[in-house]
Amino acid sequence: MSGNSIGQNFVVTTFGESHGVALGCIIDGCPPGLELTVEDMQHDLDRRRPGTSRYTTARREADEVKILSGVFEGKTTGTSIGLLIENTDQRSQDYSDIKDTFRPGHADYTYQQKYGMRDYRGGGRSSARETAMRVAAGAVAKKYLKQVHGIEIHGYLAQLGPICAETIDLTQIEQNAFFFPDASKLEALDEYMRGLRKSGDSIGAKITVAATGVPVGLGEPVFDRLDADIAHALMGINAVKGVEIGDGFGVVTQKGSEGRDLMSPEGFASNHAGGVLGGISSGQPVVAHIALKPTSSISVPGQSMTVQGNTVDMITKGRHDPCVGIRAVPIAEAMLAIVLMDHLLRHRAQNQDVVRQTPVIGMR
Amino acid sequence: MSGNSIGQNFVVTTFGESHGVALGCIIDGCPPGLELTVEDMQHDLDRRRPGTSRYTTARREADEVKILSGVFEGKTTGTSIGLLIENTDQRSQDYSDIKDTFRPGHADYTYQQKYGMRDYRGGGRSSARETAMRVAAGAVAKKYLKQVHGIEIHGYLAQLGPICAETIDLTQIEQNAFFFPDASKLEALDEYMRGLRKSGDSIGAKITVAATGVPVGLGEPVFDRLDADIAHALMGINAVKGVEIGDGFGVVTQKGSEGRDLMSPEGFASNHAGGVLGGISSGQPVVAHIALKPTSSISVPGQSMTVQGNTVDMITKGRHDPCVGIRAVPIAEAMLAIVLMDHLLRHRAQNQDVVRQTPVIGMR
Amino acid sequence: MSGNSIGQNFVVTTFGESHGVALGCIIDGCPPGLELTVEDMQHDLDRRRPGTSRYTTARREADEVKILSGVFEGKTTGTSIGLLIENTDQRSQDYSDIKDTFRPGHADYTYQQKYGMRDYRGGGRSSARETAMRVAAGAVAKKYLKQVHGIEIHGYLAQLGPICAETIDLTQIEQNAFFFPDASKLEALDEYMRGLRKSGDSIGAKITVAATGVPVGLGEPVFDRLDADIAHALMGINAVKGVEIGDGFGVVTQKGSEGRDLMSPEGFASNHAGGVLGGISSGQPVVAHIALKPTSSISVPGQSMTVQGNTVDMITKGRHDPCVGIRAVPIAEAMLAIVLMDHLLRHRAQNQDVVRQTPVIGMR
Amino acid sequence: MSGNSIGQNFVVTTFGESHGVALGCIIDGCPPGLELTVEDMQHDLDRRRPGTSRYTTARREADEVKILSGVFEGKTTGTSIGLLIENTDQRSQDYSDIKDTFRPGHADYTYQQKYGMRDYRGGGRSSARETAMRVAAGAVAKKYLKQVHGIEIHGYLAQLGPICAETIDLTQIEQNAFFFPDASKLEALDEYMRGLRKSGDSIGAKITVAATGVPVGLGEPVFDRLDADIAHALMGINAVKGVEIGDGFGVVTQKGSEGRDLMSPEGFASNHAGGVLGGISSGQPVVAHIALKPTSSISVPGQSMTVQGNTVDMITKGRHDPCVGIRAVPIAEAMLAIVLMDHLLRHRAQNQDVVRQTPVIGMR
Repeated sequence: MSGNSIGQNFVVTTFGESHGVALGCIIDGCPPGLELTVEDMQHDLDRRRPGTSRYTTARREADEVKILSGVFEGKTTGTSIGLLIENTDQRSQDYSDIKDTFRPGHADYTYQQKYGMRDYRGGGRSSARETAMRVAAGAVAKKYLKQVHGIEIHGYLAQLGPICAETIDLTQIEQNAFFFPDASKLEALDEYMRGLRKSGDSIGAKITVAATGVPVGLGEPVFDRLDADIAHALMGINAVKGVEIGDGFGVVTQKGSEGRDLMSPEGFASNHAGGVLGGISSGQPVVAHIALKPTSSISVPGQSMTVQGNTVDMITKGRHDPCVGIRAVPIAEAMLAIVLMDHLLRHRAQNQDVVRQTPVIGMR
Repeated sequence: MSGNSIGQNFVVTTFGESHGVALGCIIDGCPPGLELTVEDMQHDLDRRRPGTSRYTTARREADEVKILSGVFEGKTTGTSIGLLIENTDQRSQDYSDIKDTFRPGHADYTYQQKYGMRDYRGGGRSSARETAMRVAAGAVAKKYLKQVHGIEIHGYLAQLGPICAETIDLTQIEQNAFFFPDASKLEALDEYMRGLRKSGDSIGAKITVAATGVPVGLGEPVFDRLDADIAHALMGINAVKGVEIGDGFGVVTQKGSEGRDLMSPEGFASNHAGGVLGGISSGQPVVAHIALKPTSSISVPGQSMTVQGNTVDMITKGRHDPCVGIRAVPIAEAMLAIVLMDHLLRHRAQNQDVVRQTPVIGMR
Repeated sequence: MSGNSIGQNFVVTTFGESHGVALGCIIDGCPPGLELTVEDMQHDLDRRRPGTSRYTTARREADEVKILSGVFEGKTTGTSIGLLIENTDQRSQDYSDIKDTFRPGHADYTYQQKYGMRDYRGGGRSSARETAMRVAAGAVAKKYLKQVHGIEIHGYLAQLGPICAETIDLTQIEQNAFFFPDASKLEALDEYMRGLRKSGDSIGAKITVAATGVPVGLGEPVFDRLDADIAHALMGINAVKGVEIGDGFGVVTQKGSEGRDLMSPEGFASNHAGGVLGGISSGQPVVAHIALKPTSSISVPGQSMTVQGNTVDMITKGRHDPCVGIRAVPIAEAMLAIVLMDHLLRHRAQNQDVVRQTPVIGMR
Repeated sequence: MSGNSIGQNFVVTTFGESHGVALGCIIDGCPPGLELTVEDMQHDLDRRRPGTSRYTTARREADEVKILSGVFEGKTTGTSIGLLIENTDQRSQDYSDIKDTFRPGHADYTYQQKYGMRDYRGGGRSSARETAMRVAAGAVAKKYLKQVHGIEIHGYLAQLGPICAETIDLTQIEQNAFFFPDASKLEALDEYMRGLRKSGDSIGAKITVAATGVPVGLGEPVFDRLDADIAHALMGINAVKGVEIGDGFGVVTQKGSEGRDLMSPEGFASNHAGGVLGGISSGQPVVAHIALKPTSSISVPGQSMTVQGNTVDMITKGRHDPCVGIRAVPIAEAMLAIVLMDHLLRHRAQNQDVVRQTPVIGMR
């Protein structure tokens, strides 16, 4: 399996460049009989879509997804599902200046060196535009997880630069353009973003994503632990530089007597572990946090290098998000959904018949 | 591929329980012609081995590895390499009390629920004893990476509870039992550990692991980015709850103008990225950090639950490391080595012939 | 990896139903820098295309392939290649009678039972229409193999029912609608096919496919031998019921003194082995044969069963090939190309650096 | 996944050379709760074992398998199962003459060229001795398939050179050293083998292997069809040059009206298809045939080549089976079991929940 696929039993494979003809993906292994329409995917695609608020890039893409196969009379058939989104607002000319220069902080240099060439239009394959297909595929996983197993996934922006959410009110998330759970900070966020735009700079962010209703037992030790596969999926999102499960880096200064989640037949007393013990889901909410770096596409000049090997001072023009972390919320949800979906199928491949005969121990 | 394998072209598959007959692994895809003896692996196995200092578990295991196949006349043959370590100091009786109780913070409960049963002796497969085979396999990767490509991998303990390394002196790492790069803090560490033992508690830790000499071009976007696969490999180590690449969670409060690594024909001006741009190695050192939780095996009593569904107060007896982070240094190195090795082979599978004809751009 | 993908390093994933919106595929792992246009694929697509002669189905499909990604300025970029063929001549109404009945010899019954439902239009995913994407992907592999390594692949119809090719004249293959290498039998073939059409029946066939210029060393023992992967790829073509390498079933009555290929520094004295020894290519032509069953879509009535569980006598109407073996020639070539391409990349992943230093032994 | 692994959810990975220290394998993904002892594997290992009759090699190996992990209190735990067989009767000196010469018909030449070196002792990894671990792993699959699903697998020698089984009496198979189902031919077989030994030659064979009780629905179109994966597994056995499913090459001269299996609510009227339709099991017995070439290790001299590039006349000494097909019967059974096991798990990963709600259509 090469690098554009993720999953073992629920496998998502994607293609598409920022300014190519189209983006597409194939979902293989989806259970049959799931009701599926484009609307199921369009909701999350719209949440990720550029141009929806003044805090994100001005690029306008309808991001209308088409189902090309694998669905018949409104239901998945069990065969591979082909999805397509055509690129409409490409404006290749916007990016002509990066043809000969490597933008610092971007993948221009590494793609060029790895492949001996690169599609420089809008970053080509390395653009976050590619994540639209992840969101589409994730929406399929989300629907199945919710409908068949009652698993729900929610993400939010936990921190934008210096501004942290102090109250976590999940009902707020879809009420503002930041996916921010603390309404008291919205004005501060707005003001911060204005300042950022004025200075032509960008800022990092922290996102939290969680799944509730996850059954005990998902995860395949020792290498494909649930947390390891979540880390793989989330670190593979553009701009992500850190992944935490549960208490994350907070454990470094924890004592064993503080960090363990005590348990009783009534359930766990806490969830420091973030819902994963020994790489297997514990039945508690699965909680992950990710750190996203500020985009390097800013109008503050910075030293760089041309393809010919000369030094230049560079300003990245074009339409960019000053905080890529905002739009990453639906992407992180999608990746978590894909991982949980895959592990649900993997788990029942091995364990379904025998476990069914075993009484589950009393918790809950 | 199921959960006990890691890698695509350099594949490591392991087996073995804490108190079973033996631990073993199969390395598949190792290039032929590499000189390999048990000594090459024994050095790192000894670094990971329990019972070597008063700061780690008192369990005594020789951890002597045997090569069963894949090596002929002192060189790898290209066929699968079988490795074996027999368990010698098992003392099953030490653990008889955990047969009927789920230790809080451990995998007892999740294994039981996933599989409908569990090997309770010393944690069975969920014990960190399993990582001995990772270290053995990692040593093979390390040797190849160094010998053929000049890539070197070093890890160290960056923080133990409240005690941070302030000076990073790599020559110190192998001079003390903590793999600690700051000699001025060794006394403080010793004192802290004594206090911990006295209180019967344990503590978290942070480890840094880095690879130098990594060529530009390793990593397979968009899902199997180098950093994503490193996150997968490191988060899959027992007790790890967080993974960072380069600046990690520090990027949350960074501005774009601060965090990007400016570049010129002389090289990069900084390494905030930790050696990975767009999921592909940049030629700079690859740097990762991990957070390890304190072991939950402590003598401070904690509420738990029996297999029969009753509440109990539990003390975990036995021989345990008060800081599992210490011995995790060689494990983290091994996992990084396995990932780099795999990606080196994957990269040349796709790119070798064409890239060879393309002049590499001027940097360095 | 699920069932709609083939390959490890050169991975082809397909989607699409006979009467769906479109067929598509993603090629992942293709080396960068390969010149690629739609014409490179169109030639083989036209060879496979229905409606080109009176011996094949009357369905008319332009089978025009579009490149959606992975190619920039006429060359592959190393990122995933998206390909699309829109279905144009679907005529769903032709097949409405099979909605409630399982056609004998077809996959209707097994798809229904496996997935609990099926896309009955033209056989849905089980239709050989799906193989168009294999041919497109195979054409990419063929081009690389030829251009970079001088490997060429040719298939031909070796037998159609009772009519065997006695002379193998490769220059004849593209001169007739049967891909038949023996011009002296063309009239007999034409006559036989007329008789078949009159009787409303169909006939089996045998195809030979061979690759020349294959270097020594491709194939990964012990399970992914080159011949094992060729068998997997060829048996996975619709209607194939047997696969042979070299002498195939002829070896059953052979003696060891007859069947071994003697060797000298001048080369092998014969090629009973079909170019594979111990699962690894020997440098001789790789030769495989396949048996294709007659299509079950015939107008001779046959007993079958309805979805409701009743017995019926069934005639399969619609546009069908009386000998599906004919159009399978380019499909078999494509599958062999995909396998060789994948193994070329796998081989160099493991062996390139070390083998390069070893003098190859004298043969040829 | 590299070449020494087979399967996606039930994965078997092996190591070991003919004259190395030991053979081993890891079974990953085995359902927990299966009772498993060494005796379960020893029966089939003994059937494959050399030295049990005068018709096979004189090499004597106890082939005693040890379970090193994955089984606790007599049951599989769901974690990876480690198996080991130590080599005892190696006699390296027997093979010293092949160090410098490539035996014709063997893998000596291709291994040397692929890897730049080879373990020449007894053929190293290319020896059929490797198949002992397949038999051990296959026995685990067989037990699960039989115990949990009532699936049984039987193989027999269908033809040895010119001598065909005309009566198929399954009760005879285990009554003679040939696994031959036609008792009336046993004397002829004995006489034929004596003649062969006298002439120092060897002979090819045909084996049939079948599984009964296979449920409808196993197989993953379009590439991992059940028949495609069976072909992969069987063609990957040493010396196999052809694989057929059901009527196999007999379909070449069949008409559609002859070859299709008519169906009614009472079941199928015939089994030309060999139990697979459209790549998915039909509920009928799955039937495959394989052709095995005569061993090239014979005392009839044959021209070959030295490592130094000189021509030699070679006689292969040592202990060899004059018909490797005989001992291949349990190997073929094992490979079929492994494939069915894997597909059973893959099928339920995707389809279990939805299919469970769908009434299976009336057949049987």
